[in-house]
Amino acid sequence: MTSPAPATVSIDPANLDPVALAQALIRRPSVTPADAGAMDTLQRQLEALGFACRRMKFGEIENLYARRGTARPNLCFAGHTDVVPVGDDAAWTAGPFEAEIKDGILYGRGAVDMKSAIAAFVAAVAKIPAHPGSISFLITGDEEGVAEDGTVKVVEALAAEGEIIDHCIVGEPTSANLLGDMVKIGRRGSINAWIAVDGKQGHVAYPHRAANPIPVLVDILSRLQSRVLDEGYAGFQPSNLEVTTIDVGNAATNVIPSSAKARLNIRFNPAHKGKDLAAWIEAECRAAAEGFSGRVEVLSKISGEAFLTEPGAFTDVIVAAVTDATGRAPELSTTGGTSDARFIRALCPVVEFGLVGSTMHQVDERVPVEEIRQLAVAYEALINRYFAAFA
Amino acid sequence: MTSPAPATVSIDPANLDPVALAQALIRRPSVTPADAGAMDTLQRQLEALGFACRRMKFGEIENLYARRGTARPNLCFAGHTDVVPVGDDAAWTAGPFEAEIKDGILYGRGAVDMKSAIAAFVAAVAKIPAHPGSISFLITGDEEGVAEDGTVKVVEALAAEGEIIDHCIVGEPTSANLLGDMVKIGRRGSINAWIAVDGKQGHVAYPHRAANPIPVLVDILSRLQSRVLDEGYAGFQPSNLEVTTIDVGNAATNVIPSSAKARLNIRFNPAHKGKDLAAWIEAECRAAAEGFSGRVEVLSKISGEAFLTEPGAFTDVIVAAVTDATGRAPELSTTGGTSDARFIRALCPVVEFGLVGSTMHQVDERVPVEEIRQLAVAYEALINRYFAAFA
Ligand SMILES: [Zn+2]
Ligand SMILES: [Zn+2]
Repeated sequence: MTSPAPATVSIDPANLDPVALAQALIRRPSVTPADAGAMDTLQRQLEALGFACRRMKFGEIENLYARRGTARPNLCFAGHTDVVPVGDDAAWTAGPFEAEIKDGILYGRGAVDMKSAIAAFVAAVAKIPAHPGSISFLITGDEEGVAEDGTVKVVEALAAEGEIIDHCIVGEPTSANLLGDMVKIGRRGSINAWIAVDGKQGHVAYPHRAANPIPVLVDILSRLQSRVLDEGYAGFQPSNLEVTTIDVGNAATNVIPSSAKARLNIRFNPAHKGKDLAAWIEAECRAAAEGFSGRVEVLSKISGEAFLTEPGAFTDVIVAAVTDATGRAPELSTTGGTSDARFIRALCPVVEFGLVGSTMHQVDERVPVEEIRQLAVAYEALINRYFAAFA
Repeated sequence: MTSPAPATVSIDPANLDPVALAQALIRRPSVTPADAGAMDTLQRQLEALGFACRRMKFGEIENLYARRGTARPNLCFAGHTDVVPVGDDAAWTAGPFEAEIKDGILYGRGAVDMKSAIAAFVAAVAKIPAHPGSISFLITGDEEGVAEDGTVKVVEALAAEGEIIDHCIVGEPTSANLLGDMVKIGRRGSINAWIAVDGKQGHVAYPHRAANPIPVLVDILSRLQSRVLDEGYAGFQPSNLEVTTIDVGNAATNVIPSSAKARLNIRFNPAHKGKDLAAWIEAECRAAAEGFSGRVEVLSKISGEAFLTEPGAFTDVIVAAVTDATGRAPELSTTGGTSDARFIRALCPVVEFGLVGSTMHQVDERVPVEEIRQLAVAYEALINRYFAAFA
């Protein structure tokens, strides 16, 4: 993929238009793992605003850590310039990388998730030429992909250097229906497990010469799905297990198959640790396999632990800023999928707040330009209130 | 597939060689539903022995009913000229349709299942030019396939005409290790069931917006596999259920799938009727689906009911004949898969006796030529003892 010519963006700090910057970023087709010049576009803008910028490349992934100021507290904005694929290109009202505005609506991949939020935070910073402490940006190009060379590695590197981030705001699209109706103060953890049962093929009329793996797998899944993991946890939904597939692929009605596989996912609240859930899955597999002549294998992968930023002074700042700018007091929620906040939580308290997410990852991802400007106003209030409270 | 030129077979009744006739039949590549001239080869031989032959064609399937004599009792030999596919042609020691004899072993598809047994019974009949009652052959070209246009239809047609068969011997390969060590006096029934659960697709983080079909399917299968159907039945193994496949085919770790399917097979003894088992499966599906917003569908197909020919005068004839010819008293068994005996059982008592089945349906299906000759001797003893006992 070739990069288009850089879009023209005003870099007059006093008049930085978040919509124009959002458009410039959307015009970089940065579908993970491609960067397509998106990080450069952002970096030029931040440098014009006086940020010291460090590019941190892991594998083929571009990451950026930018900081203005050296004192504490350090308020960090975290986000990603990468976007998910466009899906059916022809189905879009406007080209997914053209960033066209029609009737006050900006169309494009990344319009809500989350190039516009980055642009809004940059515009907010531009309005505050002087502040105590520091403002920083932690921007990755690998949030939508495998997320192995992105935020997780940047966080590790910064921690190793002793870089201190005091509080972090993540710009994911957290609003449910109207800008500011919801911020996220935590996320459930997520674990996937792959279970494979190997037995011995045979004829259904001679089961004693075979070892059918299916009854063992059914028993394992029956044990796993029958447990109520919890009834919820302060601020969280109950933990939940979903078996997502079972596959044998045996076409012959009179044949006992040799192997059977399943996969499951658990979304869990802080009542659980990923490793305890993995151990439980393994224990149920062992119990179900008792007396079975074949073999059961489990592979578990923890995508992220559950975390919670307890309501307090930091969340109060955000609630007040959002209420200032939007007139609505946001719900403090922990619902939904995972985000890079799970990695940053290792460094400091994290709250997520951004645009209305209803069109994210879809054809015709879009946002009213007024919502981007309102988000910039909310972020500006947030920065001012933050330093008033913590500096 | 083109038919090869007819093989040369002696039709001198007094000197009919069962091995030569077996070879002639094997050289007809009659893989179901093809006949490839096999039925003609057999019919010419039977006509030379004085049989009145009737071809009964259903769909594309050749069937033959041949009878010598008009009086009762009518002793029928039942079998099939069709064979299963050859598998890996190149892996055979000799071409699967060449009927080569190497070191006294006849190689070929159908050598054991069951062209050689047909040839042995024809040779036995040739040795008995006169007998009371009648001898008949009920031969189908559709036993290895769907078995819908074969024995089941011939039996219906003969019953409708009032044709009486008093006793039947089926030439399936029933011997386990040595010729005559086992005859089959019954078979378990068989039922297949296909279960489909339809729910609603969604994201694993939002399970309340989806309806996962997998937990319902796991519950159904868990209920079905946990029931002990019985502890056995006089002369039979316990009934047995095997889930033979489960398939979802969902590649995405974060997606709840919309549908899930499974298939199972039950081999059952006379403690059960197929329709009762089908009703039980449906009842468990209904119970597991309680409170589920999706849909569960079951399709059951009974391949055959269980049956038993009680040990008595007829089985005594066979045991004595086998002991005469082989020196061993056969075990009376009901183990193994299904056969066309399940259809003939509607007309009369049925016993199955044939070659050692260990290479059936495999590459290098084969039989020692001496075993074919010994089987012809056993069948001859059987016919003589039969008319001595029943005529
Ligand atoms: Zn995002
Ligand atoms: Zn057969």
